[in-house]
Amino acid sequence: MQQQVTVQCPATVANLVCGFDILGMALEQPYDLMEVRLLPEPGIIITSKDGFPLPADPAQNTAGAPLLAMLEELDQSIGFEVIINKQIKPGSGVGSSAASAAGSVVAANHLLGNKFSKEDLVRFALFGEKVASGVKHADNVAPCIYGGITLIRSIFPLDIVSIPAPALHVTVVHPQIEVRTADARQILRKQVLLKDAIRQWGNIAGLVTGFMKQDYALIGRSLEDVIIEPVRSMLIPGFDEVKSKCKEAGALGGGISGSGPSIFMLSKDTGTARQVEKIMKEVYTSIGLDHHTYVTTINQQGVKVLA
Amino acid sequence: MQQQVTVQCPATVANLVCGFDILGMALEQPYDLMEVRLLPEPGIIITSKDGFPLPADPAQNTAGAPLLAMLEELDQSIGFEVIINKQIKPGSGVGSSAASAAGSVVAANHLLGNKFSKEDLVRFALFGEKVASGVKHADNVAPCIYGGITLIRSIFPLDIVSIPAPALHVTVVHPQIEVRTADARQILRKQVLLKDAIRQWGNIAGLVTGFMKQDYALIGRSLEDVIIEPVRSMLIPGFDEVKSKCKEAGALGGGISGSGPSIFMLSKDTGTARQVEKIMKEVYTSIGLDHHTYVTTINQQGVKVLA
Repeated sequence: MQQQVTVQCPATVANLVCGFDILGMALEQPYDLMEVRLLPEPGIIITSKDGFPLPADPAQNTAGAPLLAMLEELDQSIGFEVIINKQIKPGSGVGSSAASAAGSVVAANHLLGNKFSKEDLVRFALFGEKVASGVKHADNVAPCIYGGITLIRSIFPLDIVSIPAPALHVTVVHPQIEVRTADARQILRKQVLLKDAIRQWGNIAGLVTGFMKQDYALIGRSLEDVIIEPVRSMLIPGFDEVKSKCKEAGALGGGISGSGPSIFMLSKDTGTARQVEKIMKEVYTSIGLDHHTYVTTINQQGVKVLA
Repeated sequence: MQQQVTVQCPATVANLVCGFDILGMALEQPYDLMEVRLLPEPGIIITSKDGFPLPADPAQNTAGAPLLAMLEELDQSIGFEVIINKQIKPGSGVGSSAASAAGSVVAANHLLGNKFSKEDLVRFALFGEKVASGVKHADNVAPCIYGGITLIRSIFPLDIVSIPAPALHVTVVHPQIEVRTADARQILRKQVLLKDAIRQWGNIAGLVTGFMKQDYALIGRSLEDVIIEPVRSMLIPGFDEVKSKCKEAGALGGGISGSGPSIFMLSKDTGTARQVEKIMKEVYTSIGLDHHTYVTTINQQGVKVLA
């Protein structure tokens, strides 16, 4: 029986503009590396190699809580040591907590001979999201585990569907401000206008249809959010300018990645994606805000077990 | 130049349960027949051959208003005579007004040498829906003109997308009670809970994905409406019983057709669709309510110009 494994855990973009809490996409870049070792006695040990000040108590750790849930279901006298080398900055809005949660359960499942289904693994990983944001949302952990673009049709009961999509180039900018997922949830209104909800579901259906028909123009037209973005974008300096200038430069569209502060843009080709990156850098340089950018593509595989 | 034409105008099911105002589907049965003649002088003449007491004033008639809109854009000194032989009972909830609106503009466009695009025709036909219900909704006229299942991503600006779907058998029951579209709209709340809206958009994305992946089980799971149906179904006696018994009998799912009172159910095969019809008849016979049923399939062509 294999005793240890290293996994590569992709960043993810949740919501995809109009699909709040139901759509997510895995990215080729950035990603975390995690090493998971089987222990002969019960317990979870979390070790961090990256210097981020995350809780070492497994019940409070986004990689630990999912493993505790898994162990409870297993009813075997074993444990895991997890060594995290995080490259996805916590709080950046591209699924840092999800990468830890998804990576730990995929790695553990590999060591257990793939006892559990992908859907089981999402179910366990949700405990990590609960620790991170107070809410079990699957729009990062599902694409992180499945790869590609995933729909979470329902959380209770869990219903995850992969959505085929054409090649897309993704540009991400992370302005170095803090937006806590819990805060970003709290500012949302509990009620929405029916007419806005209708506009939103038109866009969601349009986006899904655009992906599956490989209709880039339809994807672009459907990347519109009349409910969440108008509220959350206020927390992100430069948002409107980045969005409008990137679209002028040929991006299909984009918006807030998850609860922010990262902003992502989709483009049809890598040249446009690079141009979009240049614009993002210009905007945040002129505002005087530190930032990181990535130009990447959709990750199709999800968490990858390294040889 | 051809002087007259007869068209066959399909019934349509709007909303498709979770897609309020954005999804619709054309049916093979029932359909209206309409004859349209070119007149050398301005004006619209509406003649009814079916005995339904619909307004003869073109501005108040669902077939007339769209033609007036078309003539205004044409700026030619011509007119149309429309002879309507309606088989789709007005107020039944399967797009009777839409069939008139769509049929008249498709027929007129044929006589004009197809000057206008399908999208233009939907734009004109919306004037008929405005006359009928006070609201320009395209979820009947779009599928009536395009055929198949259509998404109306947006009304302003108009954005219509055809959604491929697998073969489906449709059973419709029309309990003979009156539900006015305008009333059925009025009882809806203007605001909805964000958590319900999220559940709804998960179902919409699931339904569209199910159609395009030809995944019948996903279609079935996604035919859930947590916003409109709980309110509107109160206007339809026997609704809950019909729905639960039809699903027990193997229907994938279904719900209110448009604003009701008709109820539709989707099935994978014709045997199930016939069994569903039997159940519908039993329920309404036991309630003592007159009713009509149809067992049909999706119409792929939309309004058909007859030879």
